Amino acid sequence: MPRYRLTVEYDGGAFNGWQRQGEDRPSVQGAIEMAAAHLNGGEPPTLHAAGRTDSGVHASGQVAHFDMSREISGLGLRDALNFHLKPQPVAILEAAPVRESFHARFSAVGRHYRYRMLDRRPPPALEAGRVWHVDRPLDVGAMTAATRVLVGTHDFTSFRATQCQAKSPVKTLDRLDVVRVGEEIHVFADARSFLHNQVRIMVGTLRLVGEGRWTPADVEAALAARARAAAGPTAPPEGLVLTGVDYEDWGDFPPP
Amino acid sequence: MPRYRLTVEYDGGAFNGWQRQGEDRPSVQGAIEMAAAHLNGGEPPTLHAAGRTDSGVHASGQVAHFDMSREISGLGLRDALNFHLKPQPVAILEAAPVRESFHARFSAVGRHYRYRMLDRRPPPALEAGRVWHVDRPLDVGAMTAATRVLVGTHDFTSFRATQCQAKSPVKTLDRLDVVRVGEEIHVFADARSFLHNQVRIMVGTLRLVGEGRWTPADVEAALAARARAAAGPTAPPEGLVLTGVDYEDWGDFPPP
Repeated sequence: MPRYRLTVEYDGGAFNGWQRQGEDRPSVQGAIEMAAAHLNGGEPPTLHAAGRTDSGVHASGQVAHFDMSREISGLGLRDALNFHLKPQPVAILEAAPVRESFHARFSAVGRHYRYRMLDRRPPPALEAGRVWHVDRPLDVGAMTAATRVLVGTHDFTSFRATQCQAKSPVKTLDRLDVVRVGEEIHVFADARSFLHNQVRIMVGTLRLVGEGRWTPADVEAALAARARAAAGPTAPPEGLVLTGVDYEDWGDFPPP
Repeated sequence: MPRYRLTVEYDGGAFNGWQRQGEDRPSVQGAIEMAAAHLNGGEPPTLHAAGRTDSGVHASGQVAHFDMSREISGLGLRDALNFHLKPQPVAILEAAPVRESFHARFSAVGRHYRYRMLDRRPPPALEAGRVWHVDRPLDVGAMTAATRVLVGTHDFTSFRATQCQAKSPVKTLDRLDVVRVGEEIHVFADARSFLHNQVRIMVGTLRLVGEGRWTPADVEAALAARARAAAGPTAPPEGLVLTGVDYEDWGDFPPP
């Protein structure tokens, strides 16, 4: 069974998340599986993604893999999937045959997220559904000071959804940067892996610091408390984008 | 009758253009007029815009003015209009009282547009409705050479819609720049005023040059022909944004 790797962009606002859930709840996984069925003798293959993004969360660089019943060129697979995905807001950016040892989720060694806030009094019009509207001016310097509490290896129990199924709450956060871009504030978060809602809870907490309601020391106390209620609220999904996934070996077949 | 100036952002994809046309055809003008009626004793005022953008064309810096039956602070007007505009994708970025001699259209001395193309094989997912999908690689150097033919004062008859109502086809194009931004190509066009569809026809023509189907000399010949059929096709509206309008005097009242 030849295996293929996909790099995928999607508008999460059109789906109930990545994960297939049933016919009446559109998912990105289901949409791509149905498109792939056309190339697989009518049989939808099962997709495995690097990160099962929640409802409303976007991706510009999600990675997934699946096995097909026949061989097809990467370019041919990409174009055929995009044809069958129309008009849904999902685009296959790249498709490539990979070795059977490649697994989009278990082979991943890094995940990159970007969270966008629109920091102005008027609501978003052009970027509605792409940003979290924060109508009070945020102090990026204070937010940056608070990120230093979170970067590194910690027990992130306070920053995980209560329904998070990860075995361990200990994660290593490699990067958490806050950057002002015109009227927007972008938060960049990199780690080998994240807990459920970790980025959104970190952003919801950083907002409290940016507004001056919390200090960096309050964030440190929240982290130390190891209780979800100790951290800030979960930021809404529409500001979040999974921008990329790293692999030590992309599994290319034949090897480049 | 106190006069107010508005700076407006909107998603043109949700409207049949700026101009009010009737109850069953939503327009940006109509939406703001209905919102303003709540602050004007139930009477919708008449808005005048710097540029009556076509159906599907966006704005991040449209300017309009209107007269109210009573005085209100600029900040109060902005916030009240945004409240009544919800959930439509229109945002009032700024509102200010202005002198009665200020006219959003006739006082304008410069208009700025940006056109976005997505230059890649896969279709847009996250930027759908915001970009023109061009699936063949464009040569930005050749496009830039072609812009030099168009910048300056010319008879732009070849680059105006046949239904254009401007008295003269002679316009001065101050800037036409083509810039690659990652997978996108942005075209920036500045002029005191433009003919109907001028930016979109220039972009549709530049695309032909970028694809290698036309040379800059072909654009020169199209301009000299003074016939709409001589130029390239009209690029679709969704890539176009009115980003700003210039005034020698913003009409501030009282003067700053």
